[in-house]
Amino acid sequence: MTVVAGRPSIPPARYADRLRRAGEVAGESGFDALLVGVGPDLRYLTGYVAVPLERLTMLVLAPGRRPAIVVPRLERSAAEAGVRGDVDIDTWEETDDPYAVVARHVPPAARRIAVSDRLWSSHLLRLQATLSGARFEPASTVLSVLRMRKDPDEIELLRIAAHAADRVVGQIAAGRLVGRTEAEVAREVRDRLIAEGHDEATFAIVASGPNSASPHHEASERVIEAGEPVVLDIGGTVGGYSSDITRTLWVTGGKPEGGPDAEFSRLYAVLHDAQSEATAAARPGVATERVDAVARGIIDAGGFGPHFIHRTGHGIGLDGHEEPYLVAGSRETLEARMAFSIEPGIYLEGRYGARIEDIVVADESGPDVLNQASRDLLVVDG
Amino acid sequence: MTVVAGRPSIPPARYADRLRRAGEVAGESGFDALLVGVGPDLRYLTGYVAVPLERLTMLVLAPGRRPAIVVPRLERSAAEAGVRGDVDIDTWEETDDPYAVVARHVPPAARRIAVSDRLWSSHLLRLQATLSGARFEPASTVLSVLRMRKDPDEIELLRIAAHAADRVVGQIAAGRLVGRTEAEVAREVRDRLIAEGHDEATFAIVASGPNSASPHHEASERVIEAGEPVVLDIGGTVGGYSSDITRTLWVTGGKPEGGPDAEFSRLYAVLHDAQSEATAAARPGVATERVDAVARGIIDAGGFGPHFIHRTGHGIGLDGHEEPYLVAGSRETLEARMAFSIEPGIYLEGRYGARIEDIVVADESGPDVLNQASRDLLVVDG
Repeated sequence: MTVVAGRPSIPPARYADRLRRAGEVAGESGFDALLVGVGPDLRYLTGYVAVPLERLTMLVLAPGRRPAIVVPRLERSAAEAGVRGDVDIDTWEETDDPYAVVARHVPPAARRIAVSDRLWSSHLLRLQATLSGARFEPASTVLSVLRMRKDPDEIELLRIAAHAADRVVGQIAAGRLVGRTEAEVAREVRDRLIAEGHDEATFAIVASGPNSASPHHEASERVIEAGEPVVLDIGGTVGGYSSDITRTLWVTGGKPEGGPDAEFSRLYAVLHDAQSEATAAARPGVATERVDAVARGIIDAGGFGPHFIHRTGHGIGLDGHEEPYLVAGSRETLEARMAFSIEPGIYLEGRYGARIEDIVVADESGPDVLNQASRDLLVVDG
Repeated sequence: MTVVAGRPSIPPARYADRLRRAGEVAGESGFDALLVGVGPDLRYLTGYVAVPLERLTMLVLAPGRRPAIVVPRLERSAAEAGVRGDVDIDTWEETDDPYAVVARHVPPAARRIAVSDRLWSSHLLRLQATLSGARFEPASTVLSVLRMRKDPDEIELLRIAAHAADRVVGQIAAGRLVGRTEAEVAREVRDRLIAEGHDEATFAIVASGPNSASPHHEASERVIEAGEPVVLDIGGTVGGYSSDITRTLWVTGGKPEGGPDAEFSRLYAVLHDAQSEATAAARPGVATERVDAVARGIIDAGGFGPHFIHRTGHGIGLDGHEEPYLVAGSRETLEARMAFSIEPGIYLEGRYGARIEDIVVADESGPDVLNQASRDLLVVDG
């Protein structure tokens, strides 16, 4: 494992290996070419981090051919510095048609082409027009096979990110909350995520009182009061890899009568049980939808079934949300080294809600839970 | 003009108007439906700001029908709070097929459908499979007609962002540079962009010495030395609207012999002339490629033609780069209230380079140059 500045980095040889394997899997899946635009897929395969733009940057992998990346001429130096692995760099000028340049790297008479999921539609439509004889399909069918199973240094980066997020939850729980707006607390979360070693703070959900009943509430100008819950769902990236943790606090304001009511305590006990049993079930060989069913079964039995309105979890890595998804109807089976969230929630609309989320890596010896912050309801003075 | 917290905001009635006009233009262009995913197009039409995710959020505009937005159930409250204008909200559950839900809002037998440019390919491929009788085309053909011509409060937001970026350039030019890495200076730029009122710092190119010859060099661990140029190309967003300014500094280290050499001075004089003449040419009724030709002609005549390797500019607004593009081959003509960059550059590979960039709004009375920072070569001690 290569370690740079106290954290593991992906060794250059790994990219050559990933490129080779992606080409093999694409070939086995019957694809004539794999077209990868800017985004996590490109970073995974080549290490190259670029901003998605209207100017096309595209890696072309065709089974049996050398990998090539097509970049705008003015990005050539950036690509030379950023692309690891043995990849030819081909440039296009401002007045060229970049889609025609890509087509030159695709085998003639290609019938099936995979494109990266996050490629912009404007690019895909032009590629479809240029390579009009081919059928286009999502590249995730090829690339998720590789990306779902993490390398040891990928797991280490996820662990470093998780621990940093754990510390931020602890710091927020120990600080002042009553009388501050959700947005103020969210700004503090973002600053602390960076201070604890994240390269970027991606999101900071701070949902207080009735807002806690909305799973994807962001952070508003609502002032946090004593005697209500606050759901914190926060994350960022370390070396490209995401953290994502949710903990629920109950803010008493320091008053004995400010604690959780009986309904909330019961709701939280059911939720805690669901999250912990789903985690225990997340072993290699288990269907992802089975993990969802475990959490859902416990919440159903507790009488809160209609209030658990989202899936149990999502894969995590270079994307904050990626395969495998832990949801009814998913056909994926967990394998060792897959990393994903386990995050059931219960939401009583108009009143309050709660969620508990950890990042977990499937392992033959049992679930490797990356987050270490307590999963108990955090009853704090605030 | 509505003013919130010292800056203009888009009044709610404007969204209803934009939705209506988008429906009209789509109909006039022969589209049966306009499908808009998360991103600047959705923000422009509805005010709704959401993160692009694997869970589909999609506005459906069909001429003659009420606008509808399809959102995941767990985003319902966020959409209710975020969507202005009169838009029906339709939700899908975690185990539903969201593409089928979108299809229910599309007129039966739709033949031509426009999709927003930034929609992820994974979504577009599923829509194409679901609405297999339709031809899909980029929505920019419809939406750029609206978005290119800015409303007065959009111009005001661009101006506020430009002035904030101007101040940051001044602060960096007045501070220490020699002995610091590009990355350190880039971090300072980002902090200062926020301190000067940006909601987000989007990019901070700091390209010193030979790196200044790479137009899209980001910021590296290279230490800035005395006796070399530094290109600063920085920007962020204010209320969703982008700043984007480039200035070139020459760092002397306080030594009399540390100033620019004769070649650089000549290069910069040609560049300054090109940027200023292109700006003067940017009037309503002038072809965008003509503005590019003005800059290119001056740089050609100065003998640096092969070293000006990118277009002269790009539109700017809710996207950092959007139509119109000022490039040879573009068929657009400038109209009043279009906003765009004018940013020629000259790059001598392996040696050094320079670029000057302003944001300009076309106006009947002449170009309204939003940036006010001096365009002279900024010779500083550093």
